[in-house]
Amino acid sequence: MPPARRLDGIATAAAIRAELTPAVAAFAARWGRSPGLHIVLVGDDPGSQIYVRGKEKAGAEAGLRVTVHRLAATTTGAALLSLVAQLNADPACDGILVQSPLPASLGPAFEQQINDALDPLKDVDGFHPTNVGRLAQGRPTLAPCTPSGVIELLVREGILLRGRHAVVLGRSDIVGKPMAMMLLERDATVTICHSKTQDLKAITRQADILVAAVGRAGFVTADMVKPGAVVVDVGIARLDRREDVVRMFGEGSARVADFDRRGSVVVGDVHPGVAEVASALSPVPGGVGPLTIAMLLANTLKAAEARMARS
Amino acid sequence: MPPARRLDGIATAAAIRAELTPAVAAFAARWGRSPGLHIVLVGDDPGSQIYVRGKEKAGAEAGLRVTVHRLAATTTGAALLSLVAQLNADPACDGILVQSPLPASLGPAFEQQINDALDPLKDVDGFHPTNVGRLAQGRPTLAPCTPSGVIELLVREGILLRGRHAVVLGRSDIVGKPMAMMLLERDATVTICHSKTQDLKAITRQADILVAAVGRAGFVTADMVKPGAVVVDVGIARLDRREDVVRMFGEGSARVADFDRRGSVVVGDVHPGVAEVASALSPVPGGVGPLTIAMLLANTLKAAEARMARS
Repeated sequence: MPPARRLDGIATAAAIRAELTPAVAAFAARWGRSPGLHIVLVGDDPGSQIYVRGKEKAGAEAGLRVTVHRLAATTTGAALLSLVAQLNADPACDGILVQSPLPASLGPAFEQQINDALDPLKDVDGFHPTNVGRLAQGRPTLAPCTPSGVIELLVREGILLRGRHAVVLGRSDIVGKPMAMMLLERDATVTICHSKTQDLKAITRQADILVAAVGRAGFVTADMVKPGAVVVDVGIARLDRREDVVRMFGEGSARVADFDRRGSVVVGDVHPGVAEVASALSPVPGGVGPLTIAMLLANTLKAAEARMARS
Repeated sequence: MPPARRLDGIATAAAIRAELTPAVAAFAARWGRSPGLHIVLVGDDPGSQIYVRGKEKAGAEAGLRVTVHRLAATTTGAALLSLVAQLNADPACDGILVQSPLPASLGPAFEQQINDALDPLKDVDGFHPTNVGRLAQGRPTLAPCTPSGVIELLVREGILLRGRHAVVLGRSDIVGKPMAMMLLERDATVTICHSKTQDLKAITRQADILVAAVGRAGFVTADMVKPGAVVVDVGIARLDRREDVVRMFGEGSARVADFDRRGSVVVGDVHPGVAEVASALSPVPGGVGPLTIAMLLANTLKAAEARMARS
């Protein structure tokens, strides 16, 4: 088989953002203000700093008004809840995103507690239970950005979902479960696999569309994929040991050369050998990642328009 | 193979109700009142009349205080929403159930609108989006009664779910989707099939546990079932043409004799031939139906306890 077509997340994200920019401008012209996105960043997790800067930059480029609330790692839960209450009440705030992970000192349940406290109409991450429920019910809602981005990628690449067997690897609240609901809503037959699944390969080999969101570098190997399947790689991990990069990509590969230059490489859940079997494959980096940010911007505009339509 | 073990919903429902009765009495002793279930019945659909009478009787037997609000088919949406608001505010009302279907004159979206209007803490059907979302997130909630009953039946019959492949036929908001979420939460690998699924038999034959909720009499035939599978029949239909009963059960069968006595028989989604292939099978009637009512009572007590714990 010829190697898999590359599902280009960078180009698709650029297309979405190119559509958003005039729509954001039209919103601003109509309502006299830009849609406002507020990002709450607690502590100094280096990954989160990078993610938030990416969201801030992309939002500004699209014409959103992005405000980042940078808070010390010692911020109390009460202070965070109070900030959320203030943003809920702020008429110029259309979207609120609390960057995950929050400091461990806030406790394991606090992340959900803060999402529960958001006005569902401003919940641009789609993690409030009301929005999760509306998504499951197939109703208009703010849906989680990463699975929304996967759907956009598949639809814009002309990949048929109706009647096809989609297998989702991973059952997180952020990706796996909402992904399954969105694929089901688009008439795919959906299987959700996870760490307790037995004979995983027998199931993944049935997938017409395989979405990998397990968070284990190179976990999906060629023997797990049906020839001609469409594979979407949602995983993202940084490899910083040369031997791991060599094991995954082979000595002499471009990715090992990358590693030798930079000291680390970013990889997904899908082993590069899958490109020889799949008909289409989203790369990491350059696949789902850029779409997650594009969908955050789209959700912010959608939230702003919905709120103004109600007012 | 020996014929399938019968998964006895009547006995399981009786066991659940036997556990509920002293728990309801303990609630009443502690709080000086019985848990209050309010059922809203609009119009004179004969099926709904029977269902509501069943719920009323079972509730009273368990010691609940059941109030049925019988309203004319001409009742306006505004009047219904006003009744719901009044019940939401009533401190002696712990659970609210709006019997489906509502009169068509209220419009197709009204049923969801009325469920949206319920206090989620009193939503004993589990159809409010916040409760749907909490269920998807694997959090404590009021879950829909029918899939909850299926889980109770499987668990109390000692059927292992973890790691096994469960296939759900049907993707309704009332059964299929919440069923899938509950099976996933119990570590099954879950596939959801529906009317657009291609090569359905190839998928259902992989099921260790097959839950049929399609609403088509006798739809699941023996050739669709893996030998030794556990099959749960959620369908319920009334056959009132003799030829249909003969086609499904065969001339000379007990069910045809039933038909000849009564003029109709109640059947499920599962063809009787499945009993020769499955290791266990829930009958219709006498399977999931009684459990749905038992779980409604359980949800009412749970809602009452949760509300009083918060007060």
